[in-house]
Amino acid sequence: MSDHVRYEVRDHVAVVTLDRPEALNAFTDQMESGLIECLDAADADDGVRVVVITGAGRAFCAGMDLTDGADTFRAWRTSPHAPAGTRFEVPGEELPMRRDGGGRVVLRIFTARKPVIAAVNGHAVGVGITMTLPCDIRILADDARVGFPFTRRGLVPESCSSWFLARAVGPQRALEWLLTGRVFGAAEALAGGLVRSTHPAGEVLPVALGLAAEIAERAAPVSATLTRQLVWRMLTAEHPATAHKAETYLLNLRGMSGDAAEGIAAFLDKREPRFPDRVSRDLPSLPTGADADADPTGDRHVRA
Amino acid sequence: MSDHVRYEVRDHVAVVTLDRPEALNAFTDQMESGLIECLDAADADDGVRVVVITGAGRAFCAGMDLTDGADTFRAWRTSPHAPAGTRFEVPGEELPMRRDGGGRVVLRIFTARKPVIAAVNGHAVGVGITMTLPCDIRILADDARVGFPFTRRGLVPESCSSWFLARAVGPQRALEWLLTGRVFGAAEALAGGLVRSTHPAGEVLPVALGLAAEIAERAAPVSATLTRQLVWRMLTAEHPATAHKAETYLLNLRGMSGDAAEGIAAFLDKREPRFPDRVSRDLPSLPTGADADADPTGDRHVRA
Amino acid sequence: MSDHVRYEVRDHVAVVTLDRPEALNAFTDQMESGLIECLDAADADDGVRVVVITGAGRAFCAGMDLTDGADTFRAWRTSPHAPAGTRFEVPGEELPMRRDGGGRVVLRIFTARKPVIAAVNGHAVGVGITMTLPCDIRILADDARVGFPFTRRGLVPESCSSWFLARAVGPQRALEWLLTGRVFGAAEALAGGLVRSTHPAGEVLPVALGLAAEIAERAAPVSATLTRQLVWRMLTAEHPATAHKAETYLLNLRGMSGDAAEGIAAFLDKREPRFPDRVSRDLPSLPTGADADADPTGDRHVRA
Repeated sequence: MSDHVRYEVRDHVAVVTLDRPEALNAFTDQMESGLIECLDAADADDGVRVVVITGAGRAFCAGMDLTDGADTFRAWRTSPHAPAGTRFEVPGEELPMRRDGGGRVVLRIFTARKPVIAAVNGHAVGVGITMTLPCDIRILADDARVGFPFTRRGLVPESCSSWFLARAVGPQRALEWLLTGRVFGAAEALAGGLVRSTHPAGEVLPVALGLAAEIAERAAPVSATLTRQLVWRMLTAEHPATAHKAETYLLNLRGMSGDAAEGIAAFLDKREPRFPDRVSRDLPSLPTGADADADPTGDRHVRA
Repeated sequence: MSDHVRYEVRDHVAVVTLDRPEALNAFTDQMESGLIECLDAADADDGVRVVVITGAGRAFCAGMDLTDGADTFRAWRTSPHAPAGTRFEVPGEELPMRRDGGGRVVLRIFTARKPVIAAVNGHAVGVGITMTLPCDIRILADDARVGFPFTRRGLVPESCSSWFLARAVGPQRALEWLLTGRVFGAAEALAGGLVRSTHPAGEVLPVALGLAAEIAERAAPVSATLTRQLVWRMLTAEHPATAHKAETYLLNLRGMSGDAAEGIAAFLDKREPRFPDRVSRDLPSLPTGADADADPTGDRHVRA
Repeated sequence: MSDHVRYEVRDHVAVVTLDRPEALNAFTDQMESGLIECLDAADADDGVRVVVITGAGRAFCAGMDLTDGADTFRAWRTSPHAPAGTRFEVPGEELPMRRDGGGRVVLRIFTARKPVIAAVNGHAVGVGITMTLPCDIRILADDARVGFPFTRRGLVPESCSSWFLARAVGPQRALEWLLTGRVFGAAEALAGGLVRSTHPAGEVLPVALGLAAEIAERAAPVSATLTRQLVWRMLTAEHPATAHKAETYLLNLRGMSGDAAEGIAAFLDKREPRFPDRVSRDLPSLPTGADADADPTGDRHVRA
């Protein structure tokens, strides 16, 4: 993988580590492409049932790397090193634009097949926190500081946070955090519903791995994939009947699967189930017309 | 009504009781059709202003009846006893599918004319809790256990819970509960916002009836119907101006109604109002193009 | 401005005061048009970075003026004094309807360029509370009473509250408040997430002004405008990729702006930024096809 991201699989859990501790894991182009590669690898590997994202050292991610200072974004429109899939052509604009890298990562997490848990072991600012918003669950260190400082830098919300943040914490809290750009503590993040729970920094990864193990050991992998994809997509479905059609279709298929036979039998026998189905082989398509799987980082959406 | 559901009207409140206490009110085909009949009856009866759903005995509903074990869902595609309106034809599939029964009940509650309160008097697992998500208010026994165990059975979310649950408790809490499939206590349900309040089991129905009485005695019935239908539909309206148009239209009509004349006069006179309008006779259509009333359990949506 | 609204600008904050203290600031036609004029003035003035709305005297707003009693809404369809833009033609209806005045104000706040904070210094009932729902942040007096009494008057939710309230506090809380029509205290409003915080009445405006100052002093004005418009619009965007496209476009433009150069340089230098860009001159259009700015109180939506 990339120099800036580490990937390890153990006990059916892929741990993805932001790995620039000397720079507080500040976000780079290599981190962008590395994270996308990690999610591709986890999705393709039936040995991985859950993904946990964490940071090396004392921070989770201090935000975008600003080593180039005021030229940071200037480079976006001229860089010969821009990763594949990052160009965004706007009619009437002379130079091609560069797609927001945090947004590409976030869309990749949004469409992931495996549940994703963020183990936010320390400070998480800017893209450091917005990249976690499409994760299913966020665990936070109780001494971490969190902030969405975009207005203070003369910028705007990124990583699709203008879509995700109000859905996570409601529009009032989202707007206060985004408009003031203020950095705040873990207690405020917890009270606002941004994170599931807070813990001493050293316990953040163990708690996340505990939740991951609970899912990896007890949930049928195909069911877990369908569950996260259904819930995220139905957030914007126009009518509950859309969910009813998708659920009906999937219940009929999954109800006749080996997983359901085993899951129901194990429940009635009061024993642990051993699910036979594999995501790579047995995952039905969602019948909703959603094309997210075919478009994991939103390339087609952006060209449309 | 059905053998598995009891229906009683008193003081303008219809109490619908899941009535298989010997099986912890496990959900059956008869319960599905019985619940839909109860909601049809309540909607058609001007004597009913609020519906309360509760369970007989110590549980609310232990989930789907799994007496047939691993054959439970197999029967879905072959049953000669499937209720009317339950077939779901999928192009390319040999056998007709069976519509999710919990979903049919949930869509019927979603489109109900009368406010619906769930008095969850005990354990509520699987469809036992998901069927309550389209209710306007949920009251929970403080010793009840709640769970969404679908991934543990090799299945997927049902009863439109992939649409409703994240709207009730946010995506993070919804995904943790659905992905782990864990059973949890009333305190966690309350902290997550799943229920309005928790009480000793014996007080759940009285508290629900108290809220029902407050609505039955103080709210104009036509206004209550329009209010619940507007709020549920506007959850997915694309722009607040859609609400503005619907509200403008209804304020003009309702503002000239006998109910408004009486409601305003009673307020100014500091007395209780006696509203003349009746839902069966005086309910205006919503001008939003929503067809839920004409499609109470989503039949047309499913065929489309 | 109108007789019923006062407008003052100090330290980059426009304070808009509902100014009928002898009538507990009950909502009138003049207040409707006055509020819209104030928001137009604030949007057009680069000296204004934040708007704070509050009430004169001990109440914030006791609701719609019901001086005309049961004739209040009758006048809607015949008034020769109806403000411009308030007619609503419905095919098949003999008389023109009058657009809900609270809804016109709310749509104007929804599309405002400047962040809007409600300093709810006392009782807020009916339109008195629903008019604050499109504000970015709400601060409440701890002795204030709040209520949504529409069903008790024989009416329906107004001021787009059927769209906003469930998005602010979730459908369960919204429906309980709207269906019962009950008046409740500040603690319940806070627990439900309706308001950001509660304070002694005399501290409500100072707390709101403190938040306003934090935004006015630290946020680049163009960034603040784009942030609030993005967050409100993305609440209903169908897919996070819509946000990704809008954010990508704006990051490329804003990343090369004088504001970003100054914001990043000031951050690296650990000093306060002095942002050069002005909303009147430097605000990019959102590339989402949203036309709210061109339609500030929803006139085109209503005619469509």
